[in-house]
Amino acid sequence: MSPRRSAAAALETREEIVARAVAVASTDGLEGLTIGRLAGDLSMSKAGVIGHFGTKERLQLAALEEAIAIFTREVWTPVAELPAGLERLLAICDAWIAHLQSGVFPGGCFLTAASMEFDGRAGPVRERVIAGFEQWRAAVERDVRAAVKAGQLPAATDPAQVWFELNALAIGLNQALQLLGDDDAPARARRAMRRAIGLGAAG
Amino acid sequence: MSPRRSAAAALETREEIVARAVAVASTDGLEGLTIGRLAGDLSMSKAGVIGHFGTKERLQLAALEEAIAIFTREVWTPVAELPAGLERLLAICDAWIAHLQSGVFPGGCFLTAASMEFDGRAGPVRERVIAGFEQWRAAVERDVRAAVKAGQLPAATDPAQVWFELNALAIGLNQALQLLGDDDAPARARRAMRRAIGLGAAG
Repeated sequence: MSPRRSAAAALETREEIVARAVAVASTDGLEGLTIGRLAGDLSMSKAGVIGHFGTKERLQLAALEEAIAIFTREVWTPVAELPAGLERLLAICDAWIAHLQSGVFPGGCFLTAASMEFDGRAGPVRERVIAGFEQWRAAVERDVRAAVKAGQLPAATDPAQVWFELNALAIGLNQALQLLGDDDAPARARRAMRRAIGLGAAG
Repeated sequence: MSPRRSAAAALETREEIVARAVAVASTDGLEGLTIGRLAGDLSMSKAGVIGHFGTKERLQLAALEEAIAIFTREVWTPVAELPAGLERLLAICDAWIAHLQSGVFPGGCFLTAASMEFDGRAGPVRERVIAGFEQWRAAVERDVRAAVKAGQLPAATDPAQVWFELNALAIGLNQALQLLGDDDAPARARRAMRRAIGLGAAG
């Protein structure tokens, strides 16, 4: 195998391990990820798995990074080209709801689960979860501010309050879908999100 | 030791194990509960711990039952004697927020964490989590209906929508407190809960 071919094969194997790690962690949590289990699932040696990451924590971070990339691809990418402001804010809500319904993570929203799992544990995994939420928060608040500036929302609108409510409703929707299988929940979340944005009954 | 004394001592030991199990599971999850760890924490033999429960699943169920009892004592008991309707509904919101701020569970809301941990895993733990949420949902919706009947809320108020939003806001508040240490979150949650109930800006 040429060095280039070998590097490509290693990258492919690494991607395969990360994809499996995301699926496992989505149902069993990031702490449920073990090198032995992944090796068994992928018919690899433990040394083959650990060689790509070094430590369990690096494996957890790689799975988290991939989950953030999937969320971005499903929720942000489809709306990124829309004009900033109310139009994009509403499109974000719809893409967010569609993502939670999509079942791309078998165990439901990866980042919410990771935030519950690591909220009490200091370290780089918790820091990455926080950074992921803060980045998403900044994107949402930016469109709220743009909508206010454009006169699409009242001047008194508080971007941080809108973010707090939209994020809470998304987490609540995830619970209603995953735990209770509540088919009415997406419509309820959509209605509540529009009200949180300040569209009242008109939404 | 007389048989009665011995039964009382056994009950006390069981309560001690359950209390420790609730604390451990609140930070590390119900799957993080191991007989060995509890035995170590309590300076007991593994056989001494397992003798009280038989299986890890029964230990998880006992911890969950105790967490539900704590939630009930903190959120429902203080408001139970109030008249049904809007007054009690608002008192429920305030008690719910106070409970999430209280730090009674070191790892944050026990039931939310358990719901995220077990939403994808069939079995009695998941069933008990669902039953706990359904019972709480019924209590909240009952007061919404009573408030509508008393003319305190508009006739078009949808109890299931109000429950969905209040529960989402409580989960969102838990995340904001535990993950982000956001001190503004309780006031944000209170404002949003009043709006979810239908009190608009007047709340």
